[in-house]
Amino acid sequence: MLIVPTARYPENYEYALDFPKFLLIGDSITERCANPFPISDFLADGYDKNGNYTVEHNSLEFCFMGQLQHDYARRMDIINRGFSGYNSHYWRHMIEKVLRIEHDLSYSKCKVATLFLGTNDAAFAKPDGVPYDEFLDNMEFIIKQILDRDIKLVVIGPGHHYPDIWESLNPGDVEKGILRRNEENLKYSNGLKQLAEKFQVPFVDLYAAHEEYAKNSVLKSSQNLILDGIHFTGEGYLLLYQLLKSALAENYPEMTVPNLKMRLPDWNNFDSAKVEEIEIPALN
Amino acid sequence: MLIVPTARYPENYEYALDFPKFLLIGDSITERCANPFPISDFLADGYDKNGNYTVEHNSLEFCFMGQLQHDYARRMDIINRGFSGYNSHYWRHMIEKVLRIEHDLSYSKCKVATLFLGTNDAAFAKPDGVPYDEFLDNMEFIIKQILDRDIKLVVIGPGHHYPDIWESLNPGDVEKGILRRNEENLKYSNGLKQLAEKFQVPFVDLYAAHEEYAKNSVLKSSQNLILDGIHFTGEGYLLLYQLLKSALAENYPEMTVPNLKMRLPDWNNFDSAKVEEIEIPALN
Repeated sequence: MLIVPTARYPENYEYALDFPKFLLIGDSITERCANPFPISDFLADGYDKNGNYTVEHNSLEFCFMGQLQHDYARRMDIINRGFSGYNSHYWRHMIEKVLRIEHDLSYSKCKVATLFLGTNDAAFAKPDGVPYDEFLDNMEFIIKQILDRDIKLVVIGPGHHYPDIWESLNPGDVEKGILRRNEENLKYSNGLKQLAEKFQVPFVDLYAAHEEYAKNSVLKSSQNLILDGIHFTGEGYLLLYQLLKSALAENYPEMTVPNLKMRLPDWNNFDSAKVEEIEIPALN
Repeated sequence: MLIVPTARYPENYEYALDFPKFLLIGDSITERCANPFPISDFLADGYDKNGNYTVEHNSLEFCFMGQLQHDYARRMDIINRGFSGYNSHYWRHMIEKVLRIEHDLSYSKCKVATLFLGTNDAAFAKPDGVPYDEFLDNMEFIIKQILDRDIKLVVIGPGHHYPDIWESLNPGDVEKGILRRNEENLKYSNGLKQLAEKFQVPFVDLYAAHEEYAKNSVLKSSQNLILDGIHFTGEGYLLLYQLLKSALAENYPEMTVPNLKMRLPDWNNFDSAKVEEIEIPALN
């Protein structure tokens, strides 16, 4: 596990107290991306809903949202808007309201957003699944809402799926016909990739990255990335983190940590008079 | 490492898209609390400021802010306002502006705040140190600003310090007379505890908890909690996390996860008409 961290205190800072937002839009994979113990959530969600259990946490794993928040410390707030089981149809109804609160009406604006949907849409039946053409139409609507606000967007496509694991853990899904297949994930991913190209926004091709990971692994499998057939292990989140960082560096270098100004200076240079001068205008 | 997680999807939810804020106010211990790899930050801060180094991260540790964000997923946003090296004097100049942005002017209000200062104030010289009486006066000012807004406050006092480790790593501090001693930390902690009692807000007595940890440890030391003399290891953050959760459960049960309503329902119950009905008033 190799990460090149960013030094905490370069000399670029400004006297400002708004914190731009890095907005994570998605489903359960996003909702759970702050979890330092994916195995506990695996046990918590769907397998014992009453909370009356105890887990010995010996499974500490890479914490995606923690790492991202740490990277952007004093520079941006990472805001998690992941909703488990939600798809592009649900998000089409939510996106304007979410952006109105987090951007339009907010003093601190959204500067970057990830849009990570498709994993549920690619399922065969409702309420998870959304037909392919409707999925693309919804995604176009959502992408436009984001780009209309000049928010730097990274679109992330669905990755690998393990039907054997998921279906054995979720017999209810099988009964209702909510099946999932890699062929569908790939189809939805490719459609999304074309849509991202149309809007000239970067696309994180997670499906291709999972393929590549499998090809290069000893077991010729991506299973170490996927916990329960759908959700990610710490290693799955680490791969996503690396791909996201690369996408930002290539497409939006102004949104990478070294190019963003730190909020307020290093403690040696603090000047209270300059804090007093920070103007916070009233909102309309 | 034993944590009792909270089940993800109890049946309490509401159709709302504001996310109340859980605000973390503090110094470097707060600023770094999202770090899944404390050792990398230890190397990054002060020991190689240019960022031109590579660390093999084999030191994955407990991620305080990640865990907290995961606990409150779909219920609150955890907002980090930790500023390395900052003390009560600096924060006295900042608090009103921070709360104005994050609470007064914000559609999503601050519901809970932690105030974790004193570790720098207790140092012997400026710019870190603040004299005892001035420290208490500053903290009173800051506490009032928070309580005036009906934000549920948890005050956290400074913990143990290891002068031998810190001073060998920071000879510059020694030259400038910025020394730190446990006796001072204890004095500042006790003063803060009395202040918290005066305002009837809960106090996390970290110093006492570090004493207790040392007493019960095989080595009769709290050193496993402290990375470099001041900053916390994952184990140090885990102890703080447990104390904070207890303080919330005892004093503000309405702010614990099971008593907060989830934003939007479980995917099976999503009703787009009810999302359309969510009213987002214009701000004044």
